[in-house]
Amino acid sequence: MSQTAYRTHHATEVTEQLVGQKVTLAGWVDRRRDHGGVAFIDLRDNTGLVQVVIYDEEMARPLRSEFVIQVVGEVRLRPDGNENEHLATGKIEVVAESIEVLAKSDALPFQVSTALENESENKLPGEDVRLKYRYLDLRRPSMQRNLKLRAQMSKAARHALEEMGFEEIETPTMIKSTPEGARDFVVPARLVPGSWYALPQSPQLLKQLLMVSGVERYYQLARCYRDEDFRADRQPEFTQLDMEMAFVDQEDVMAMAEKVIAAIWKSAGYDIKLPIQRITWQDAMDKYGSDKPDLRFGNPLIELTDYFKNTPFRVFQAPYVGAVLFKGGAATPRRQFDAWQDWAKQRGAKGLAYVVFAENGELKGPVAKNLSEEERNGLKEAVGAEDGDAVFFAAGRRTSSQELLGAVRVELARRAGLLKPDDFAFTWVVDFPLFKPTDDPDDDDVAVGHSKWTSMHHPFTMPSKDWIDKFDKDPEHAMSDSYDIVCNGNEMGGGSVRIHRDDIQDRVLDVLGITPEEAADKFGFLLEAFKYGAPPHAGIALGWDRTAAILAGADSIRDVIAFPKAGGGRDPLTGAPAPISAEQRAETGVDYDPDEDED
Amino acid sequence: MSQTAYRTHHATEVTEQLVGQKVTLAGWVDRRRDHGGVAFIDLRDNTGLVQVVIYDEEMARPLRSEFVIQVVGEVRLRPDGNENEHLATGKIEVVAESIEVLAKSDALPFQVSTALENESENKLPGEDVRLKYRYLDLRRPSMQRNLKLRAQMSKAARHALEEMGFEEIETPTMIKSTPEGARDFVVPARLVPGSWYALPQSPQLLKQLLMVSGVERYYQLARCYRDEDFRADRQPEFTQLDMEMAFVDQEDVMAMAEKVIAAIWKSAGYDIKLPIQRITWQDAMDKYGSDKPDLRFGNPLIELTDYFKNTPFRVFQAPYVGAVLFKGGAATPRRQFDAWQDWAKQRGAKGLAYVVFAENGELKGPVAKNLSEEERNGLKEAVGAEDGDAVFFAAGRRTSSQELLGAVRVELARRAGLLKPDDFAFTWVVDFPLFKPTDDPDDDDVAVGHSKWTSMHHPFTMPSKDWIDKFDKDPEHAMSDSYDIVCNGNEMGGGSVRIHRDDIQDRVLDVLGITPEEAADKFGFLLEAFKYGAPPHAGIALGWDRTAAILAGADSIRDVIAFPKAGGGRDPLTGAPAPISAEQRAETGVDYDPDEDED
Repeated sequence: MSQTAYRTHHATEVTEQLVGQKVTLAGWVDRRRDHGGVAFIDLRDNTGLVQVVIYDEEMARPLRSEFVIQVVGEVRLRPDGNENEHLATGKIEVVAESIEVLAKSDALPFQVSTALENESENKLPGEDVRLKYRYLDLRRPSMQRNLKLRAQMSKAARHALEEMGFEEIETPTMIKSTPEGARDFVVPARLVPGSWYALPQSPQLLKQLLMVSGVERYYQLARCYRDEDFRADRQPEFTQLDMEMAFVDQEDVMAMAEKVIAAIWKSAGYDIKLPIQRITWQDAMDKYGSDKPDLRFGNPLIELTDYFKNTPFRVFQAPYVGAVLFKGGAATPRRQFDAWQDWAKQRGAKGLAYVVFAENGELKGPVAKNLSEEERNGLKEAVGAEDGDAVFFAAGRRTSSQELLGAVRVELARRAGLLKPDDFAFTWVVDFPLFKPTDDPDDDDVAVGHSKWTSMHHPFTMPSKDWIDKFDKDPEHAMSDSYDIVCNGNEMGGGSVRIHRDDIQDRVLDVLGITPEEAADKFGFLLEAFKYGAPPHAGIALGWDRTAAILAGADSIRDVIAFPKAGGGRDPLTGAPAPISAEQRAETGVDYDPDEDED
Repeated sequence: MSQTAYRTHHATEVTEQLVGQKVTLAGWVDRRRDHGGVAFIDLRDNTGLVQVVIYDEEMARPLRSEFVIQVVGEVRLRPDGNENEHLATGKIEVVAESIEVLAKSDALPFQVSTALENESENKLPGEDVRLKYRYLDLRRPSMQRNLKLRAQMSKAARHALEEMGFEEIETPTMIKSTPEGARDFVVPARLVPGSWYALPQSPQLLKQLLMVSGVERYYQLARCYRDEDFRADRQPEFTQLDMEMAFVDQEDVMAMAEKVIAAIWKSAGYDIKLPIQRITWQDAMDKYGSDKPDLRFGNPLIELTDYFKNTPFRVFQAPYVGAVLFKGGAATPRRQFDAWQDWAKQRGAKGLAYVVFAENGELKGPVAKNLSEEERNGLKEAVGAEDGDAVFFAAGRRTSSQELLGAVRVELARRAGLLKPDDFAFTWVVDFPLFKPTDDPDDDDVAVGHSKWTSMHHPFTMPSKDWIDKFDKDPEHAMSDSYDIVCNGNEMGGGSVRIHRDDIQDRVLDVLGITPEEAADKFGFLLEAFKYGAPPHAGIALGWDRTAAILAGADSIRDVIAFPKAGGGRDPLTGAPAPISAEQRAETGVDYDPDEDED
């Protein structure tokens, strides 16, 4: 595999077994040191480093960092005491007989040498510079590791799916605009002036059509597109591992997805215990204040609504009162509690009430004095605290209060160092509502219809069996057959049983306030397809960038994407997006005027 | 694998071993026959058919073609004489105990039943109807076979590449417009009004950047886009298996690609003998009048330029005269020779000269009388004909004459039934010129520069070693390190060694008439990357739709694409492309006026 026109071995293949043999190597000058008239080169290739020793000054003179060179030389053991235990090739070195410079390098705008492996010490430039010189940024060993991990992950998932009889099928990316809750990127169609394609937000409708066609197990690593306003860690194009099955129910899909996830983690050396635990959406909200709870640690939310039902404290006279325990928090200085107030306000909350259980048993903190004596006396037990702990409260609307407490819970764990990146806590979240209120101020999805209800997942989600006959009579309480897979507080993916009958689909669209005309215009083809015998089907998709980032322990999905966009969708490397020429614009047909055409 | 909530077995798993057992099956009613009050249903799923017998008239009554049903029943042997040898499940049948209709079906716009397996007899509607109801068209067994074959092919290629250490890396599809010889599809960038992304014609520059980054073996099944005028069997979006390697030469890439191709064909049951034969571009043109010769049969072109060098026949006083033998063609009626004239004229030729060697030894045909006696006497030997054969001639410009004769050669073979779809003749075409004349009237690629020379492949192709120092002094004769892989007269793919030094790249761009300013604007980032130590690299891409069509024996790539576009880029299924709303248009920013913005 290593033998090519330019080399006999990769760097890390040069081991003690080759001592005395001649090898040809090729790669980059990772580092050069000169010592007593002898040059020592760390030669870097895709596998790692090997030391090259050059006695000939003429030969060594031109070599600079990041030059691409080909080295012919003999392998020998390093002199006693010169071994490097940290290197796979640390026992040997290659004495250069000849060196050819394959390509020179200017001085780099920032350092990429493996010698800076402890990269926390490597002062990287800002992200725009890293992205402008992405091909250099990717030379850093940690980035090469991320690329390899992602490739390994895709391979593992594909193999697992193939084992289970899945067919990889490609779906088009120049499609009709579909209603999936975000803005479409659109492409003018030169051959049909005034008309546009849309780039897909997902292959949702197309994979459903594949099920109607008789494909029973489809998968695709699908490129998806959403034209959203810039948010940290969003990309205008992203990848999902998209899967769909016919003649299955929710349990079938979850069991299949668990095998895929286990195979992915296994490929990185981790064993996941199956089955993955489950939590209902309601429990996740009540216990963790999140529909994607981080279960690497405990410390669930404590509901105190009942406890404070007769409270004299106006703030706690609310539909919901809850708390999160801050273990050992009593020792926290006052200015840090003030900082927590700011933290909460940045999240849109009014503040963050708290009490402190002092070591001497006293109850302190701004809230304490507002409580009744009975409330003060029972509070420690009610929240499960001990002397020396503190407690944060939230009160108000149930969902937003729980979400605030959920965020506090995670932030406390983060500050306590409990969020270990290689500790993976998976959970399914199940039993989702079918609909959610359109006017939810915490929600920034775009409603697709005109009613007070919008889909919790998407309009093609099947109501759960109990609700099929009555979901439209009581949308508020209707449940769906859908499921999210969550890891370490991230939504890794989600799916649902789909509607496969046009009568049910019509009723769901009606609840969403989508008129039959709009429905016909936007996805009439799906409703039409359901008239010709659609099988029951269900599926799931995993956000591939996110999954890779979780597995790699990367802070940002940008670290697991070869060429990501910067903020605002800019690409500092190529300069995209960019203006186009007047001629190119004319050709797109965007300025086509049908009235003019009639002259 | 078959066991899901809806079934215990797939149709074709119901064999004699299960006789006496109860099974649950799910699928479509492929066909229903009624005989003596008993209903016989062919139940179809993704694996095939199984016969279901229904004695209960109530149970059978609602069932119609293409209804989706779930059947519970007992397996028994078919009565003696009722076996069906053509069916995997032909020895058994399932006696229905209960049937649930999972989904009904209206009458289909066209028939898809497996019973019409001999599909040449199945009267399919026109392509627009097939595409409008693509999910029904895909129910036909031949289409399901094509989808499976393509999935199998992708799997085989991926496994072969992974064996050879390739990493799958995804590259972006919203990029900067790049110069690759066709028109880009463009996408307005809402967040940078007035700016546009382009959809990539290939990941060419990005994969080269990956090599600069130290990735050594990259692959991707990459979606590519070209906004070309409609031609038969072109799609606005298509897929290529894209591969690139660092520290390799042409031989390394060809050896690698042969392993991939062999693995693909092996997955479909065919053994390809390696290495694949090679022919130079010049030989391919001279012998077969094509840079993608069909080598399933012989009958090469015969050059007669020398033979006719003193001819009295004005038409043959040309820079090139050649011929193709029409074995046994003497018996062809005159009106068929006339039809050949029309055929040639449709291809843009003036006509198609021919002579006939009659069984009696006489030389006949319109051309015969124009030749000298010496030419007439020696002709049979010169072209290797026997009495009873005919010969077609072309004379004029070398390339276009050869191409006409090449087309005649293939058309003769087609009419003789020599173009067997499961007979695969591979060849490499090597030793391509580096440049071709920009004004070649036979060529419809778009020139990227302003000179009389344009790239034979693309501007990033490395001149061959002998030409590196002088290609710009003699562009007409300069050769490149590039290679095409051809099968049965189709260009399956191609590649080249790439330029990895900015000095060579600058000189190539200069020959192409691309100014430094244009170069900086369009791919300055690549030239910039070459300043920081780019390794020698080379690659290849296989047209995946075409490769699948060849392997499947499909007439059109549309038969191996799940959801292809019709002519003009229209999608009869979804109605794309379509107008967008005024609001959507405003959001795209295409009407952004920078002057207005300043107010």
